[in-house]
Amino acid sequence: MGKVYLVGAGPGAPDLLTVRAARILERADVVFHDALVHREVLALASRARIVPVGKRCSQISTDQRFINRSLVEAASRYQTVVRLKGGDPMMFGRAQEELDALAAQGVDCEVVPGITAALAAAAELKISLTRRGLSRSVVLATPRIGTDQHAGEWAAAVAAADTAVLYMGAGEARPLADALKQAGLPGSCPIALVQSASLPGTRNLYTTLDELPRRAPEMSSAGPTVVVLGEVLRRALSAHRSGEEPVAEPLATRASGA
Amino acid sequence: MGKVYLVGAGPGAPDLLTVRAARILERADVVFHDALVHREVLALASRARIVPVGKRCSQISTDQRFINRSLVEAASRYQTVVRLKGGDPMMFGRAQEELDALAAQGVDCEVVPGITAALAAAAELKISLTRRGLSRSVVLATPRIGTDQHAGEWAAAVAAADTAVLYMGAGEARPLADALKQAGLPGSCPIALVQSASLPGTRNLYTTLDELPRRAPEMSSAGPTVVVLGEVLRRALSAHRSGEEPVAEPLATRASGA
Repeated sequence: MGKVYLVGAGPGAPDLLTVRAARILERADVVFHDALVHREVLALASRARIVPVGKRCSQISTDQRFINRSLVEAASRYQTVVRLKGGDPMMFGRAQEELDALAAQGVDCEVVPGITAALAAAAELKISLTRRGLSRSVVLATPRIGTDQHAGEWAAAVAAADTAVLYMGAGEARPLADALKQAGLPGSCPIALVQSASLPGTRNLYTTLDELPRRAPEMSSAGPTVVVLGEVLRRALSAHRSGEEPVAEPLATRASGA
Repeated sequence: MGKVYLVGAGPGAPDLLTVRAARILERADVVFHDALVHREVLALASRARIVPVGKRCSQISTDQRFINRSLVEAASRYQTVVRLKGGDPMMFGRAQEELDALAAQGVDCEVVPGITAALAAAAELKISLTRRGLSRSVVLATPRIGTDQHAGEWAAAVAAADTAVLYMGAGEARPLADALKQAGLPGSCPIALVQSASLPGTRNLYTTLDELPRRAPEMSSAGPTVVVLGEVLRRALSAHRSGEEPVAEPLATRASGA
């Protein structure tokens, strides 16, 4: 019986993989990978059979039960089986279903963490998600746009933390902003959208909660985008504003100064 | 003028460093490092002058302004300056003060993310911090034990999220548990303490919020310990309980069955 490694591939850049993950890939016999895993990362698995199972890759969602079965089956045939996931497996990686399926069949399993998108976004912005006197809590969340009874819970969790990073949601900016305001966030809350953090085509945009629905469409849907919110962004937002739109001296001041 | 790299050293295990971080260390001229960075990681910087600036290492806290000045000064003398921090620089790494100091002097700077302790703890437990239908928000926080006006904010953020990971606080279990209960968390909330995640001496312990003050002292203070809270831990807690303390069949049932 082989061993299954649930491995985080990190945020996108191939060299943001961990050294441990790289070494496991080099000796892998088979690699089941999500979409959005860089081809240079897959190339490390030079001995392995490569099996794409991600939604965006094949355009058809591979059924989770099929993935579970495939992992168990592979462990019975190969020594080193890798399940490669974008970011970190334990953060929005749907790892639990696979871990449970493997445990149920008595398959040995190890989790190798990866750099999650929130940390790559902070590195890209060069803004710490925590800051002395300003932020001692950071929530990572996926929004749930809808009207069921749990719809507001994610927004309440975002409003209660000092800093938040939303995985997904940039494409639904209007209902996202509405839900966050309803949860108590002020319209002036500073926001940064970060697209394709760590990759060559990365882009970012500073705005506020009030202006998010108007500004968000400026980001194409070309890459995964996270939404960062919180006072830690205030100074960068102001700096961008003063650079982008020079503030005109108020007429009254000019008149009195003349 | 050289460049300063703020690099995350990850949770402890030397091979949980990113490939990018390892390459930068290999060509570093000088490395200023925190306590708790593994000596094998420092050994990668074979060309560099190694300067410890962490509190636990020297037993004397190096003044932040001194670190800031040292980084700026080093950038004027060396090409590749590394500031190596445990975990991720942007998550409880006090990176902003250094980034600001470098920006103020016009020093080029890049942030290289690292695996933060929460992800290493989840990998160790083999429990995903998020889970379909159970957890879509994860808060990472440092508790603030005290009575000032902001003392309850971190606890409110923890209570509002589906899953929480507290960096620090295991040593102050009684006031920690009190603050979390006051914020609305039930005494039955499942908890896992994870010490020295990713290192050979790692240990973990499952308990509940009610029992935390009694159980927490079982962990020595030998390594950094995070506190994980939330329903994602419920099943593992039950499994540990049934293993540790086999549940006796209630007398009434036995009597009626006899």
